[in-house]
Amino acid sequence: MSDPSPARIGLLGRGTVGGAFAELLTERAASVEAMSGRRPEISGVLRRNEGDFAEILAGSDVIVELIGGIEPAREYTLEALAAGKPVVTANKQLVAQHGDELFAAARAAGVQLRFEAAVAGAIPVIRVVTESLGALEVERISGIVNGTTNFILSEMAATGAGYDEVLARAQELGYAEADPTDDVGGADAAAKMAILARLVFDTPVVLDDVSYEGITEISADDIAYARELGLSLKLLGVTERHGDGISVRVFPCFLYSGHPLAPVEGAFNAVTVEAPSITEITMSGPGAGGIETASAVLGDVVSILAGEAPVHVPGPALEVHQDLDSSFYLHLEVADRPGVLAAIAEVLGRNEISVKSVVQRGLGDDARLVMVVHRVREKRFDAAVAEIGELDFLRSPPRAIRVIEKEYL
Amino acid sequence: MSDPSPARIGLLGRGTVGGAFAELLTERAASVEAMSGRRPEISGVLRRNEGDFAEILAGSDVIVELIGGIEPAREYTLEALAAGKPVVTANKQLVAQHGDELFAAARAAGVQLRFEAAVAGAIPVIRVVTESLGALEVERISGIVNGTTNFILSEMAATGAGYDEVLARAQELGYAEADPTDDVGGADAAAKMAILARLVFDTPVVLDDVSYEGITEISADDIAYARELGLSLKLLGVTERHGDGISVRVFPCFLYSGHPLAPVEGAFNAVTVEAPSITEITMSGPGAGGIETASAVLGDVVSILAGEAPVHVPGPALEVHQDLDSSFYLHLEVADRPGVLAAIAEVLGRNEISVKSVVQRGLGDDARLVMVVHRVREKRFDAAVAEIGELDFLRSPPRAIRVIEKEYL
Repeated sequence: MSDPSPARIGLLGRGTVGGAFAELLTERAASVEAMSGRRPEISGVLRRNEGDFAEILAGSDVIVELIGGIEPAREYTLEALAAGKPVVTANKQLVAQHGDELFAAARAAGVQLRFEAAVAGAIPVIRVVTESLGALEVERISGIVNGTTNFILSEMAATGAGYDEVLARAQELGYAEADPTDDVGGADAAAKMAILARLVFDTPVVLDDVSYEGITEISADDIAYARELGLSLKLLGVTERHGDGISVRVFPCFLYSGHPLAPVEGAFNAVTVEAPSITEITMSGPGAGGIETASAVLGDVVSILAGEAPVHVPGPALEVHQDLDSSFYLHLEVADRPGVLAAIAEVLGRNEISVKSVVQRGLGDDARLVMVVHRVREKRFDAAVAEIGELDFLRSPPRAIRVIEKEYL
Repeated sequence: MSDPSPARIGLLGRGTVGGAFAELLTERAASVEAMSGRRPEISGVLRRNEGDFAEILAGSDVIVELIGGIEPAREYTLEALAAGKPVVTANKQLVAQHGDELFAAARAAGVQLRFEAAVAGAIPVIRVVTESLGALEVERISGIVNGTTNFILSEMAATGAGYDEVLARAQELGYAEADPTDDVGGADAAAKMAILARLVFDTPVVLDDVSYEGITEISADDIAYARELGLSLKLLGVTERHGDGISVRVFPCFLYSGHPLAPVEGAFNAVTVEAPSITEITMSGPGAGGIETASAVLGDVVSILAGEAPVHVPGPALEVHQDLDSSFYLHLEVADRPGVLAAIAEVLGRNEISVKSVVQRGLGDDARLVMVVHRVREKRFDAAVAEIGELDFLRSPPRAIRVIEKEYL
């Protein structure tokens, strides 16, 4: 049921995200076609001093708005919707400040307006709260929705350095902009929380309804003292139900160590949704970033092109490999006598298995060796373990368990 | 654009999940109608010894299959699809073992087959991998997809107790079935990983392609030794790309402490998706459970009724509260002299603010009080802090930061 005509994507804005999106769309075109039945192509690009919006609009099936800021992004989005063209935008300020107008225009035209990339980068929180959990009674959403501030707070906690020093480092690394006001002052997170509050509580919340504080007053001292209490500092966005009303706020706060957002470090974002029937669901991943944002935009474009979720179509059968490399923990209960370790090391070495660590535990009848070996073809490891199992000083069969090391990811 | 006719849901199976789903559907009917334009109603229920499938099918717009097992669930699902009725199922074994046949039937009839509840309970991993991330080049999915085994391993690690003892406790608490073979042996996780592998790698993987091991041979010793190395034990499902092929496996393994799945404890499930353009996204939440599974089923039913994702329609404006209760950290740089703590305690007490902990740090010119106070109306706390700020022994303005305590969630 492939449509022979390509899906024409009009791209507004060709900055970091726009460039990453154009590249990703080209790279994944076959996959998009498999999902939607139509091959996507960029039909026009509007740059600051190049391209004509009306012409791009006329030649496109879908508009992708990555200009940022309010105008002319708002005007172009409204025009596109009025012309019956679905729009995908990554523009959080636009949706947070002019949501009512935009949604009304999309409804009037009967076309989709999607904005996954506006909140929490590549983490599909918009789709999850509106589609998967849309019919549930959500009580609270808590989120780390600004990567810049989470990076700064994580660095302050890890190094003990002060806010100004860490901000400068974040700017050098590209995690903070030259003018970081919107991020560190909380306005960026406030816009994202306004969008989430609107969607989960079905109410026309706008940015002005959100009270927010930033992290500019946080001192390294506070972080150090609180750490002794087992608390970690995050800039949190929280929207929750209070009887017939709600609240929407952004503030720095200390989290107890078991809180689902406490382990979120660095430039990552994470969002926890609480509702009686699901307890809580937490999603985490990289926040902003050109390619991550572009991935979220691509997901929206595919959803628009595919329409109703298509039924899975399996491709060709791929070979399913069974014999892979793994790192292993190996536990051996052994007799406590000379030569034992040498005999085991000989078997491992002959099988080209490299030992990462070995510890002897216990004495006499309780003696045991606990080893971790580097990645090795599993079949070869199994053969070595079988051989070790035959050694006469083993007091029980060897126990091996895989280990997933950092380099695995 | 509300359709005056109700959406008729035919329910097959009325066990724990079926009962929870019927209740949730009734409770959330208004919300489902707001999202889909149609009010849902249960048009018929097939129990073991009650109800006629052909009659229920004829009187339903959507079939929800919660019987479990292969037959007659497979037969009913195929019949429903052939009759042009979309089907929602929570049946992982059915999808893992007969996916090709079911998907082909759904495609032939041009209707949806949805199965979010089959993998990871309330966590919407199916929707995220097929819709949000569907066009990306996924390299690996790692998951804790069986709550029973994660509960058992967490308990073994926390208490040092052996496998048999903890399994008995899990059975008492309802986290493990009387016959736990499918869970502890890894077959349940294998079925879920077969489904995920099929969807992300677009290949007809079936259960037989998955190699799996369970946790029955794990000893408390192993967990204790590995903990000294900073490792935590999980039963992991992993499917990954290897050149032109893939692997799909389930095995117990030790995770390094920074692994995104390492902090997942108890009966929770979690899934990490890795792809170059998103780095990694992790979703976690409760695994099985009647109401959680029912929530996932409801999300699928709403998606079928709503068709293409509808544009957001805001409801009435809700009151946005600003003055709420919070717990606070309070940092005061004070002169090191008698009476200071008493004066501060007096201000707090008069404002009905209850102190949870107070620590004095430093001496002389470095003296400071670090306090945590219990939840209090924020305005009242601000007033007290302003009053404390006027005290003549303060060496710098007070610093207050909210604290989110365990009872908050």
